[in-house]
Amino acid sequence: MSTWLLPENIADVLPSEARKIEELRRALLDRFRTYGYEMVMPPLLEYLESLLTSGGSDLNLRTFKLVDQLSGRTLGLRADTTPQVARIDAHLLNRQGVTRLCYAGNVLHTRPRGLHATREQIQVGAEIYGHAGLEADLEIQQLMLDVLRLAGFEKVRLDLCHAGVLLALFERDAQAAAMGEQLYEVLAGKDVARLEELTRSLSPVVGEALRALPALYGDRSVLDLARARLPQWPEITQALDDLAFLTEHVEGAEVTVDLADLRGYAYHSGAMFSAYVDGVPNAVARGGRYDHVGQAYGRARPATGFSLDLREVARISPVEARSSAILAPWKHDEALRASVAALRDAGEIVIQALPGHDAALDEFACDRVLVERDGAWIVEAVPTGR
Amino acid sequence: MSTWLLPENIADVLPSEARKIEELRRALLDRFRTYGYEMVMPPLLEYLESLLTSGGSDLNLRTFKLVDQLSGRTLGLRADTTPQVARIDAHLLNRQGVTRLCYAGNVLHTRPRGLHATREQIQVGAEIYGHAGLEADLEIQQLMLDVLRLAGFEKVRLDLCHAGVLLALFERDAQAAAMGEQLYEVLAGKDVARLEELTRSLSPVVGEALRALPALYGDRSVLDLARARLPQWPEITQALDDLAFLTEHVEGAEVTVDLADLRGYAYHSGAMFSAYVDGVPNAVARGGRYDHVGQAYGRARPATGFSLDLREVARISPVEARSSAILAPWKHDEALRASVAALRDAGEIVIQALPGHDAALDEFACDRVLVERDGAWIVEAVPTGR
Repeated sequence: MSTWLLPENIADVLPSEARKIEELRRALLDRFRTYGYEMVMPPLLEYLESLLTSGGSDLNLRTFKLVDQLSGRTLGLRADTTPQVARIDAHLLNRQGVTRLCYAGNVLHTRPRGLHATREQIQVGAEIYGHAGLEADLEIQQLMLDVLRLAGFEKVRLDLCHAGVLLALFERDAQAAAMGEQLYEVLAGKDVARLEELTRSLSPVVGEALRALPALYGDRSVLDLARARLPQWPEITQALDDLAFLTEHVEGAEVTVDLADLRGYAYHSGAMFSAYVDGVPNAVARGGRYDHVGQAYGRARPATGFSLDLREVARISPVEARSSAILAPWKHDEALRASVAALRDAGEIVIQALPGHDAALDEFACDRVLVERDGAWIVEAVPTGR
Repeated sequence: MSTWLLPENIADVLPSEARKIEELRRALLDRFRTYGYEMVMPPLLEYLESLLTSGGSDLNLRTFKLVDQLSGRTLGLRADTTPQVARIDAHLLNRQGVTRLCYAGNVLHTRPRGLHATREQIQVGAEIYGHAGLEADLEIQQLMLDVLRLAGFEKVRLDLCHAGVLLALFERDAQAAAMGEQLYEVLAGKDVARLEELTRSLSPVVGEALRALPALYGDRSVLDLARARLPQWPEITQALDDLAFLTEHVEGAEVTVDLADLRGYAYHSGAMFSAYVDGVPNAVARGGRYDHVGQAYGRARPATGFSLDLREVARISPVEARSSAILAPWKHDEALRASVAALRDAGEIVIQALPGHDAALDEFACDRVLVERDGAWIVEAVPTGR
């Protein structure tokens, strides 16, 4: 077995791509910062129980396990940063007021989400704790749209959903609740025939409501349709009111509603959302409200947030990262050394050609050279034809 | 067991510390860039054999192992990024000329190096491949000193050593070579009595040379002493010539030579160095030449580089990171929204107080407020006494 082969769905990031990721990483974190989000860095490894407080069996299957030599206990390599940030809010910071936190770090998955999906993502996200009102949901959605614009996506579609609808139906029908995973898959695939079959044995009102969901997709007029077709229970009315508020106030995106898009319904407690860009089938960013997330850490605070995979966003982002550099010779010369240092202090990239070598470069384009003219070191454009 | 407890020697990084780490990370990577170093991002997980091509049994013991569900093979969670970067140079880039690469990422260790040491470091480093001359060693050392200055360390001591000395002695005496690890530990501890005992059975010339090493410590005059006390074999003369060149040309540090500091001798092939700052007993950065590192990947190129733990550097760095922010109210007001957006675009941190909450902040000091005066939103200093 060749030592240079990497495991399946694991890859190196080479210079030009790494640069793009790094620049987007900074742009996103800087934008989070201007909104007042404080950065935290939870560890890559934790005791497995701490990592799996929420997210259900899917998160468990996706989490790599290993043994801690110091304690003999099982550690998990994080597959999602959100529970860790909730732990930090609940236990470590333990503030009474609103807390805004953000993060950027690797997460690893035992199995890829799809054939060509990576098992190592760079998860970047932001969360607000301590405010149950829709103002927090709105801020998070605006922040997400803001950073997607920074990443060069001119047109973003924001798709809204609400966990309250499914949770209200499950509350009223234990049999439906027990079929949660199956119903979610059928609804996600908009498999109407199978949905018909699954819901046949449920209470009529719940069955009918579930069968109505796949058609409740489109612009905000869908909400009026939903009010007519879904039961007028307080939780459902509240969910539709929430979505009406958000569709009204979100700016800078085409807003659609999809009441059947319930990915993560077991995890969320309120409005959920996904961002789509042209030409990419999967959502580039996702988020939602999950007010119970801190419960396992002894403090269930209202919480809403979003995250994205920076590697994927960088891959599809139209932003360019290649940059120009100055090629300088190598010799013992105090004036050369001073000139190179001054250029670098001014932010220029100066590459010294080590004796006997040409520089082979991927990321940098050396379009200028540092040359000695009449005893002084000056920067000149590379002669054409070189 | 509480779900908020972390494993031993694993810790969260909270906002003010995270900010400091992030700012230093950028300063270091930007400085690498001005020297023409291209960033790469190797994966956190690889097949174990690929990670352990060099570094010996110590690296193996320090590496967490886990099972790949896709291949059934054993994966390692990287404990050192250097072999991965060598793999990228050897196999993936496969350039003929000089290649300069840098990286910044987490590494994990099964056991801490000391009682309070972290098991999760952020390793940041730079490497030059393809140039065997001392110009590359010099550039790497200058780059390291440059970034340590950026991190706020005014006075740095650069301690030089050379793997060639010990390797020459081992070459001549197989018994000494077999005692490598023991000899390294005794030399590191400058345990003269035990060194005396261990070297008694070796060939007289090798034994005498080994016993001379602990005293060969001090400013560059130590090199003259070494020429007198160590055997005049070509490899040893070359090693001392190398160190003479480096002590002569390095700028911006107090340079010392310590011929007994052989940490990583099994890994290195030429000049080795460590950087020390006032008040900190351990080296803050280390590096050296390791020309054979690419061998396992089918291409042994000359290589020299350095690395540091960014978390440790941030912990001891005197640079301050806390920054000031503007507190803004939350309401549906187009003028307010525009004002907040403009301030953020200008790089200001604007925190909107969500209805009913005060903002509790660690990283940011809200020293200004956004208030409405005669229909316009303006920034004012926080009245004193608030």
